[in-house]
Amino acid sequence: MASNDITDANFDQLMPTQDLGAMAAGLKLENLSENSIKWAKHCILDWIAVTVGGAHDELTKKIIDVAIEESATGKGRLIGHEAKLIPSQATLVNGSASHALDYDDVNARMNGHPTVPVVPVLMAISDEIRVTGIEFITAFIAGYEVETRLAEMSGFAHYDKGWHGTATYGTFGAAAAAAKLLGLNEDQTTTALGIAATQAAGLKAMFGTMCKPLHAGKAASNGLLAARLAKKGFTSRPDAIECAQGFAATQADGFKALPVKINHNEKLAVEENLFKYHASCYLTHAGIDAIKSLRDENNIKVEQVASVKQFVPKTHFSVCNIAEPVTGLEVKFSMRHTAAMALSYINTGSLMAYDDVIANRDDLVSLRNKVEIIDKKFDSRMQSEVVINLKDGRSLTKFWDAGLPMVDASLQERKLSEKFKALVVPVYGAQAAEKTVSSCLSLDELEDASYVFDFVVGQKNPN
Amino acid sequence: MASNDITDANFDQLMPTQDLGAMAAGLKLENLSENSIKWAKHCILDWIAVTVGGAHDELTKKIIDVAIEESATGKGRLIGHEAKLIPSQATLVNGSASHALDYDDVNARMNGHPTVPVVPVLMAISDEIRVTGIEFITAFIAGYEVETRLAEMSGFAHYDKGWHGTATYGTFGAAAAAAKLLGLNEDQTTTALGIAATQAAGLKAMFGTMCKPLHAGKAASNGLLAARLAKKGFTSRPDAIECAQGFAATQADGFKALPVKINHNEKLAVEENLFKYHASCYLTHAGIDAIKSLRDENNIKVEQVASVKQFVPKTHFSVCNIAEPVTGLEVKFSMRHTAAMALSYINTGSLMAYDDVIANRDDLVSLRNKVEIIDKKFDSRMQSEVVINLKDGRSLTKFWDAGLPMVDASLQERKLSEKFKALVVPVYGAQAAEKTVSSCLSLDELEDASYVFDFVVGQKNPN
Repeated sequence: MASNDITDANFDQLMPTQDLGAMAAGLKLENLSENSIKWAKHCILDWIAVTVGGAHDELTKKIIDVAIEESATGKGRLIGHEAKLIPSQATLVNGSASHALDYDDVNARMNGHPTVPVVPVLMAISDEIRVTGIEFITAFIAGYEVETRLAEMSGFAHYDKGWHGTATYGTFGAAAAAAKLLGLNEDQTTTALGIAATQAAGLKAMFGTMCKPLHAGKAASNGLLAARLAKKGFTSRPDAIECAQGFAATQADGFKALPVKINHNEKLAVEENLFKYHASCYLTHAGIDAIKSLRDENNIKVEQVASVKQFVPKTHFSVCNIAEPVTGLEVKFSMRHTAAMALSYINTGSLMAYDDVIANRDDLVSLRNKVEIIDKKFDSRMQSEVVINLKDGRSLTKFWDAGLPMVDASLQERKLSEKFKALVVPVYGAQAAEKTVSSCLSLDELEDASYVFDFVVGQKNPN
Repeated sequence: MASNDITDANFDQLMPTQDLGAMAAGLKLENLSENSIKWAKHCILDWIAVTVGGAHDELTKKIIDVAIEESATGKGRLIGHEAKLIPSQATLVNGSASHALDYDDVNARMNGHPTVPVVPVLMAISDEIRVTGIEFITAFIAGYEVETRLAEMSGFAHYDKGWHGTATYGTFGAAAAAAKLLGLNEDQTTTALGIAATQAAGLKAMFGTMCKPLHAGKAASNGLLAARLAKKGFTSRPDAIECAQGFAATQADGFKALPVKINHNEKLAVEENLFKYHASCYLTHAGIDAIKSLRDENNIKVEQVASVKQFVPKTHFSVCNIAEPVTGLEVKFSMRHTAAMALSYINTGSLMAYDDVIANRDDLVSLRNKVEIIDKKFDSRMQSEVVINLKDGRSLTKFWDAGLPMVDASLQERKLSEKFKALVVPVYGAQAAEKTVSSCLSLDELEDASYVFDFVVGQKNPN
C-alpha cells in the first residue's frame, strides 16, 4: 500500500537529512519545469542587482579588507570590485554584499532570504571550474529546495526563538547547492548537510547591525566548506537534522519531518519566490502596494487625502512601526512614512529614496501624521489592508497580500529588469547592465555560466 | 554600599558581554600570578604535543587538502606539515588537528576543551606579526577566562541540550584571545564577542565523527574573524550574550550572569586546567588512576585479582561503557577494558596502546570479564571508586577525583614533558622535542613567541 501521497506518509520512517541529500543529489534537468528555470534566472538576476548595490557598502569593504590583509587572493571574483579572493573568502564577501541592502528576495516558506546564501557559492565554483548555465541553475534550485523544505519542517518556532533562517537554513542550502555543482553523490551530499548542521548559526538579535548581512556570507562559506569536506570523505552523521540533540532538537522545537520527493505536478519553492520592489522592510510592502494600487486606480492627489488607516498583523509593530523616523534607515522600518511616500508618488524602489532628507521633508511628515497603524488578525504575516478616506467623503479600501508570488512571469521580468537597471546602470553603465540582463535571462543556454558575471566585476565603468 | 563581593552583586546590572570584553581588554601582566603563567605554559606545551599527534590524522589531511585546493597558501604555519596557509585556514587546520586525538586538556568549569580553540589563533597571529612570549601568554589567559566564565554563567543546560562547549564557548575564547593579541580596546573586544555570539555553533551529536575535531578549528577561525572584523569597525550588539533572543536565550536556558572582575586572590580558571595522561575518554581516567594507585601501593600482580568493582556516575554509562570492545577506538570508550589495561601495567598514555590487537588480547579480555561497572551517586561527574578483590581475600578500595587539578606543578611539568616526548620524539626526534619543551617552558621570556613552534612545523625529521 505504498503511496507518495503526503497524507499517507509514515512520518516515523522519514529521514530528513538523507531524504534532503537524496533529493538534491538526484535532481535532474527533467525534474525542472520551464517555469522553475525562468524563476531561477529571475532570482540570479535580482541577486546580481542587489549585490552590485551592496558591494560598496561599508560592511562589505571591511570584510574585503580583512581578506586582503590575510592575503586571501585567488580566483574568486567579487561583484563590484577588482580584487579576486580564494573561493571561501569570495563567497563570504559576495554573500554579505548581497544582503547588505536587505533588498534581496524572500520566500514565505523559509521565512527568510533564500538566494543570498546560495548564489555566491555557485559563483565561486563557476570561477574555479567550467560549469554550464543549466548546471548552475539546477544546483541553485537544489539548494533553494533544501533550505525551504528544511524551513517548512522546522516551523516558526525556530524564528520565534531567535534564529535567523537566512543564516541557519541558508547553510544547508549553500551546502546542497555546492554539493550539486561539485558533483557529490547522495551519501556525500547527506554528509555535507551534516557538516552544515553543526555549523548552522546566526542570531536575529543582530538585525540592525553589520552581522545580519554577514550571516548570508557565513552561511554561504560554511556551506561551501561542508560540501568540499564531504567530497574529500570527511564524516558526519547521516541523521544530523533529526537525531537526538541534532539540529532540530537544539534549534527547532516542534520540528516535523516531511516527505521531500519532487513531484512533477507540484510547484517548486523557487516558483514562489518573492522579489522586493521597494527598498524598505518587506513587511511595509503590502501597505505600499495597496496604497499605490488605490492611488493609481482612483488617480488620488495628496491634497485630497483626509486620513489613512493601515491594518496590519500585530507582529509588524515590533518590526517596522517607527512612527517618527528621522533617518533614511529608520524610514525603511516606518509603515507610516513609507505610506506617505507611496501617496506622494515617490519611487520606493530607488535606493536614493531612503535618506535623511526624505525622512524630514515637511510635506511627508505632515502626510504621515494622517496615517494610523492598527492591528488586525490576518491569515498570514504578509497581508495588510488600507483604507484611504478622502476629503470628499469617499472611503477607498484595498486588501493586499505580499505573500503571493507574481502570476505574470513576463511582468515580473520587466519589473526585475527595471530594478536591475536602477541599481546597476549608475555603477557599470547601460551597456554592461543590458549585457548582464540578456545573458542572465538566457543563462540556461550558456556554455560557461561564469560569463553572466563578467560585466559586473572589476573596475566600475559607467558610460 | 557598592561591593565587589559576589553575594552582594546586583545581578540585574551585570552586562556579561561588556563585562567579559572589558575583562579581556583590561587584563595586564600584573594581574597574572607566577602560577597562572606556569599553567598557561603547560597548556601551550600540551597543545603542541597533541597537535603533533593529530597532525597526520586523516581528518586533518582532508582539511588541509581543501585549503590547498583553493590556494589558501600564506604565512600561517601548520604543526606537523610543510605547507603554510593564510591565517584563517591555518587556524582551522591547527585547531582541528589539536582535537583530533581527543587527548587535549579539559576544564571542569567549561565542561569542554579550553585550549584547542585558543592557541591556534595565537599561533597564526604570531606568524603574521611579532609578539612576545608574555603577550602570547596574556592573550591565551584572556581567551581562557572568557570561555570558562561564559560557561559558568551558561550552566549545564547548554551541554545537556546538545551543544558542544568546545565549539560554542570556544568561539568566544578564540575571539577574546585574538582581540587581546591584536590590541583591540574594550569596545572593540565587546564587539568581537558579539560577532562570536552569532557564529557560535557545534553539535555534541557529532561526537564520534570528524566534525568533533572540526569544531575546535571552526571555533578558532570564527573567533579570529570576529576579532579582525571588530578591529575594522564592524558592528554587532554590545549585549549579544544576554539580550532578548541572544546567545543565552537561544542556547543556554537558565543562564545566570556573574561578575567577571579578576580578583587577585582568586585562582584563574587556567590554574584548574586538567591534563589528560591517558589517551582514552576522560571519564575513564578516574578509574584508571584509582587502579594504578592501588596496583602500585600494593604491588598487585594480574594473577592475584579475583574481581574488580568500579563505581561511577550514572552518566558514564552512555559515554564510555562499551563492555566488549573489538577495536582500538572502542577501547578508548571502555571502562572495563581500560581497567584491565591498567591492572596489566600497559601504558595508557601511549597512542600505540589503543589498537585492535589490544582490544582482542586474550589476557585482557579474560581480565575485563572480572570487572563490573556499577552506578553510584557522586558529588561530581569526574569521580569514581574502585574496589579490587584479591584471591587471598583482601579487598582494596580507592576513591579518585579526576576533577582535581594537580597540586604539585613540578610533578605536572614532569608528567607533561613525558607525554610530550611520547608524542613528539617519534615524529621530530629527541632534539626537536627537547628544544620545544625548553623554549615553551620559558615562553614568558621569549622576545618572539613564534619561536616555540619552530621545531614542530615543516618536514618530519626524526633523528
